[in-house]
Amino acid sequence: MEARRMLVVGAHSADFVWRAAGAIAKHTATGGEARVVALSYGERGESGELWKEPGQTVENVKRHRHAEAEQAAAAVGASFEGFDCGDYPLNPGEDVVERLAELMRDFKPHVVLTHPDKDPFNPDHPVANVVVSKARLLTAGAVVEAGFRTAPPSEYLVFEPHQPELCGFVPTVFVDITEVFEQKKTAMAAMQAQSYLQQYYAERAEHRGNHARKVTGNKAIRQAEAFQRLVPNVVGAL
Amino acid sequence: MEARRMLVVGAHSADFVWRAAGAIAKHTATGGEARVVALSYGERGESGELWKEPGQTVENVKRHRHAEAEQAAAAVGASFEGFDCGDYPLNPGEDVVERLAELMRDFKPHVVLTHPDKDPFNPDHPVANVVVSKARLLTAGAVVEAGFRTAPPSEYLVFEPHQPELCGFVPTVFVDITEVFEQKKTAMAAMQAQSYLQQYYAERAEHRGNHARKVTGNKAIRQAEAFQRLVPNVVGAL
Amino acid sequence: MEARRMLVVGAHSADFVWRAAGAIAKHTATGGEARVVALSYGERGESGELWKEPGQTVENVKRHRHAEAEQAAAAVGASFEGFDCGDYPLNPGEDVVERLAELMRDFKPHVVLTHPDKDPFNPDHPVANVVVSKARLLTAGAVVEAGFRTAPPSEYLVFEPHQPELCGFVPTVFVDITEVFEQKKTAMAAMQAQSYLQQYYAERAEHRGNHARKVTGNKAIRQAEAFQRLVPNVVGAL
Amino acid sequence: MEARRMLVVGAHSADFVWRAAGAIAKHTATGGEARVVALSYGERGESGELWKEPGQTVENVKRHRHAEAEQAAAAVGASFEGFDCGDYPLNPGEDVVERLAELMRDFKPHVVLTHPDKDPFNPDHPVANVVVSKARLLTAGAVVEAGFRTAPPSEYLVFEPHQPELCGFVPTVFVDITEVFEQKKTAMAAMQAQSYLQQYYAERAEHRGNHARKVTGNKAIRQAEAFQRLVPNVVGAL
Amino acid sequence: MEARRMLVVGAHSADFVWRAAGAIAKHTATGGEARVVALSYGERGESGELWKEPGQTVENVKRHRHAEAEQAAAAVGASFEGFDCGDYPLNPGEDVVERLAELMRDFKPHVVLTHPDKDPFNPDHPVANVVVSKARLLTAGAVVEAGFRTAPPSEYLVFEPHQPELCGFVPTVFVDITEVFEQKKTAMAAMQAQSYLQQYYAERAEHRGNHARKVTGNKAIRQAEAFQRLVPNVVGAL
Amino acid sequence: MEARRMLVVGAHSADFVWRAAGAIAKHTATGGEARVVALSYGERGESGELWKEPGQTVENVKRHRHAEAEQAAAAVGASFEGFDCGDYPLNPGEDVVERLAELMRDFKPHVVLTHPDKDPFNPDHPVANVVVSKARLLTAGAVVEAGFRTAPPSEYLVFEPHQPELCGFVPTVFVDITEVFEQKKTAMAAMQAQSYLQQYYAERAEHRGNHARKVTGNKAIRQAEAFQRLVPNVVGAL
Repeated sequence: MEARRMLVVGAHSADFVWRAAGAIAKHTATGGEARVVALSYGERGESGELWKEPGQTVENVKRHRHAEAEQAAAAVGASFEGFDCGDYPLNPGEDVVERLAELMRDFKPHVVLTHPDKDPFNPDHPVANVVVSKARLLTAGAVVEAGFRTAPPSEYLVFEPHQPELCGFVPTVFVDITEVFEQKKTAMAAMQAQSYLQQYYAERAEHRGNHARKVTGNKAIRQAEAFQRLVPNVVGAL
Repeated sequence: MEARRMLVVGAHSADFVWRAAGAIAKHTATGGEARVVALSYGERGESGELWKEPGQTVENVKRHRHAEAEQAAAAVGASFEGFDCGDYPLNPGEDVVERLAELMRDFKPHVVLTHPDKDPFNPDHPVANVVVSKARLLTAGAVVEAGFRTAPPSEYLVFEPHQPELCGFVPTVFVDITEVFEQKKTAMAAMQAQSYLQQYYAERAEHRGNHARKVTGNKAIRQAEAFQRLVPNVVGAL
Repeated sequence: MEARRMLVVGAHSADFVWRAAGAIAKHTATGGEARVVALSYGERGESGELWKEPGQTVENVKRHRHAEAEQAAAAVGASFEGFDCGDYPLNPGEDVVERLAELMRDFKPHVVLTHPDKDPFNPDHPVANVVVSKARLLTAGAVVEAGFRTAPPSEYLVFEPHQPELCGFVPTVFVDITEVFEQKKTAMAAMQAQSYLQQYYAERAEHRGNHARKVTGNKAIRQAEAFQRLVPNVVGAL
Repeated sequence: MEARRMLVVGAHSADFVWRAAGAIAKHTATGGEARVVALSYGERGESGELWKEPGQTVENVKRHRHAEAEQAAAAVGASFEGFDCGDYPLNPGEDVVERLAELMRDFKPHVVLTHPDKDPFNPDHPVANVVVSKARLLTAGAVVEAGFRTAPPSEYLVFEPHQPELCGFVPTVFVDITEVFEQKKTAMAAMQAQSYLQQYYAERAEHRGNHARKVTGNKAIRQAEAFQRLVPNVVGAL
Repeated sequence: MEARRMLVVGAHSADFVWRAAGAIAKHTATGGEARVVALSYGERGESGELWKEPGQTVENVKRHRHAEAEQAAAAVGASFEGFDCGDYPLNPGEDVVERLAELMRDFKPHVVLTHPDKDPFNPDHPVANVVVSKARLLTAGAVVEAGFRTAPPSEYLVFEPHQPELCGFVPTVFVDITEVFEQKKTAMAAMQAQSYLQQYYAERAEHRGNHARKVTGNKAIRQAEAFQRLVPNVVGAL
Repeated sequence: MEARRMLVVGAHSADFVWRAAGAIAKHTATGGEARVVALSYGERGESGELWKEPGQTVENVKRHRHAEAEQAAAAVGASFEGFDCGDYPLNPGEDVVERLAELMRDFKPHVVLTHPDKDPFNPDHPVANVVVSKARLLTAGAVVEAGFRTAPPSEYLVFEPHQPELCGFVPTVFVDITEVFEQKKTAMAAMQAQSYLQQYYAERAEHRGNHARKVTGNKAIRQAEAFQRLVPNVVGAL
């Protein structure tokens, strides 16, 4: 059977770590392939610690952020690619949509993860959602033949934002990440300048683990991540 | 591995046929056990054809409806039980909640299906939702020990109502029922007096099959049923 | 052609005046028949002025409220009936649902108006919605024959609550009441003890008239009332 | 009395057929005038069958689609115009908004139909909604005089998308298309390459006919189409 | 100036601790008076640890829970009262609504806190919301005089449920509890049998503190609690 | 203590008057500083009366509207600035977002007011919301240091649109403007050509005053304005 392929698209290079590193690790641990794309490096809006260094430059910040993201992706078995479109604001043109669509046509992901379409605390996250949604529909819009190259439709989910209720995020599926939680912690540790978030999201994974236990009664679950499906999935039986 | 157990609760004895017979058949075809409970026989509000017979009595209508439902359930591999609480209005007391809770404690279903909580065209369907939701929480409310007998938490979904958009129904999962569609048609045929609905729901299954093809690109899917999860499920990987 | 019949059900005896007197007057002015039912007289919660009189009694307050409501109904061409179920709280049993259902089976309304199902400022308005919705579905639940006496399905709308946005009220249709506005003012004047509300709802009708002008461009509209349909209507052409 | 004018705007040239051909036919059958505008020909994303022909060209596909759409429009008494803005993605500039606004200023439609603002299965449908909404507000934004040429405000509705619940579509009005159903079938037959959709939407019209019967109790209704009003309409009486 | 009075109503005796102990402590620390009412002791559904003791009785569990709750309330400067209506299910009659209404007429709270109206994981929390909402409207329903004893209207908020997104909870106000966090921890420690929840809600307070810092930029905030207003509040200036 | 600073951004030069003049006056009356920015003068879509004068020019209309707005702002103690981006359609580029962001970085507002993100009756109001939301997030996106100049996060609210329910507007806070109502009337009177709206919004303020009385029981409130918070606020105690 063909390996499953997962594509994770973040607005900034560290987004995938906090929100989906566990699901990526579970995916690759079960034989899947995972690619992470960051539309920007978050070099202006999410690299405050780096800018405290005297003589800091944008190019250096980006290099640093690229290295960190690559290391974090490796920790969960994924590759990392930066589209380097700039942040705060992330303002990508139609060429970026087309670049991502081409990547989807080549990679043919079975599942795509990105940000929700609303975030009253971040200008760039909803933009990423728009880019991914457009690219996905330009490659997977039809069962019938089209006048252009397509890929099979993918499952489409958004990962958990920082203040879920205010982003309209309602979880529809929890991924049990108990087995790979150490990998997620390793990936988070690669983001050295953001030690507070490492603690925050480690505790968040414990809390989602509690929710997943409540849902299943399975006491073996310790940590989990939450996702919301944007389109229904199809199953053989309930 | 333990066989999965499914509990389907309808307000009237024929509800499960139109809305979930395919998912039941898939469940039992893959080794699962399925029980259908009808809170009433729909003897007043959904048995119009039978009442056209001169000298018809309530008891006779119920007997007829019981036999039909049993036959339909058998066609998809399920057992059938009528709670006989009366319809139009279905107005069950707390004892009915407790009776259903006891059934859940004994049967320990992995998945529970019932009506959505809103239906501007039917007085009884939302009542069934309230009864099932209460009974389910009274048996599965906690991971920790409780001062009463419990069952493990179950997956909880609602099946498709007749006018979905006006009932707030948004599908989150499609079940591919292609392999068992003949069984669903047999089950529907047991409802002799409602031949129009047999055609309606056969076509509806085709349409949901079309939707499921769009979602997956899988052209082998011909018929499907739609469901909405009320609580997230937990998966090992996406 | 048969005259159209309208049934308006309020929680308290004055509710129909502020919220639907114009639509009732337009209905009767165009040859329709209108009946107003009040589930209570609002004798405890909405008759504060009357309770200031020394030696006031509940029976006297009800008598006063009945007379006022009858006079207001007459001003817009409708009859008035009080179910006298008590207010604050309005807590009607199933017998009240059945009484209203019987009334519907006899009167066979083409259109039914009542309160929305939510009101964070009033304990009784949502109860009226529940009673009317149940009664309506118990009489009009099916196209097919039923095991009980039915009436044809009716159009079903809710009228405007006092703080619409907080009650989830979103208008879907405006009724132009310009021609009958004096009748609405006469009906409101019958509620002598509530002079402030007379001004409030006269201005509100002007504001809704402004909204209706914006929607149509028809400058002849001066006053309007707003309603929300709970079920779609069927038209021959758009 | 002036004839009513209807404007129907689709993202692709065949959209109006599946979703609104019946309402158009009813409109013209009752003396109204109807114009159909397609923002694109759907030449890339919805013409898969045509692209199977060896040596196919974009210009030829467009010509083919134009002829089909013109034939379908004629079958329901409407004219057809293609804006030819390109599809997958449909990405029209402000000049297209202005072109449509000019058309509205000239045609002065009483009712405007287009796609809903959300569709997780199609990249172009929501774009059409944005274009139409903008153009409409630029021509009909005010009762008062404006510093530019305007048209009277129009009724504004969206037609039914392919997977209604997932597009946030909730019907608020059904149009009874029983009398013109043969015309809708003729219009659909003009879309030769899409025979599956002809069956799908014929059955869908039957289902909506069933819903319209439930709403009215009128057994003479056989087929219907569903629409959602985006702004309230104004009526003389309920 | 009169001291502000706060009323907190939980379904079970420990609910107020996890969800509102900080807000209570802030309230009493600034000179306010706070009363906690528990509709039940949670003796069946939330006292699992106690039931592990051999020979345990319901009366003993209730006594234990009462003592714990009293101790926790004292830690944040509040009084505690148990209505002892029974749990799982909490099924209070109209007399309980009237008892709470009488308490409100006497205590005249400026602010009332309780559970949200939806919780797919708990059968009793939404019941508490219904009881409190009814009682509040029966005492504060009108500006005008009424035919019964009233209290001034109160601010009305719900506290954070265990899985907020699935309960429809959207925070509208954060209370900074940094200064009283030790008191909240003391209150939580009184719930000896639930040590896991002590850690969970301590971390949750830290997370809400992070959210409150993001909203204000005030780095002095370390812990917070989240609430949702059900009715608007009135302010003198923004 | 530092004076509070308020920034009010409207799509057209008169918007702030009808919707927020009272809140501005209360703000400045209590020692705050207020700045009003209008993205356009509404010279095309909202200056119909002026265009009736023969020989009218766009430049003259703008001059007139600027003078009116300055006078109205002065009446409530605020300064006025016109960005002059053009209206119907308001179509500002990223440079306008950056200009507003710079203004925010300099002015460091504690509270920002603008239009809701939806308005089916106005093409420009939602555009203003997008511009303000972007600019605000580009200046206040982070607690941590950023690679660009920031301002502290601000409270963010939308003011009441003309047809609130159809714009998704739900009030979360009322501002009591009783003390400054004469100032609001003076500000409205500066809009000489729109005498009807002066009456409309004076009555609207009375109605919101009625709502604010209902919420508080405070009979001293005569007029109010309604606002909806887009992000939670943080308080020291409830």
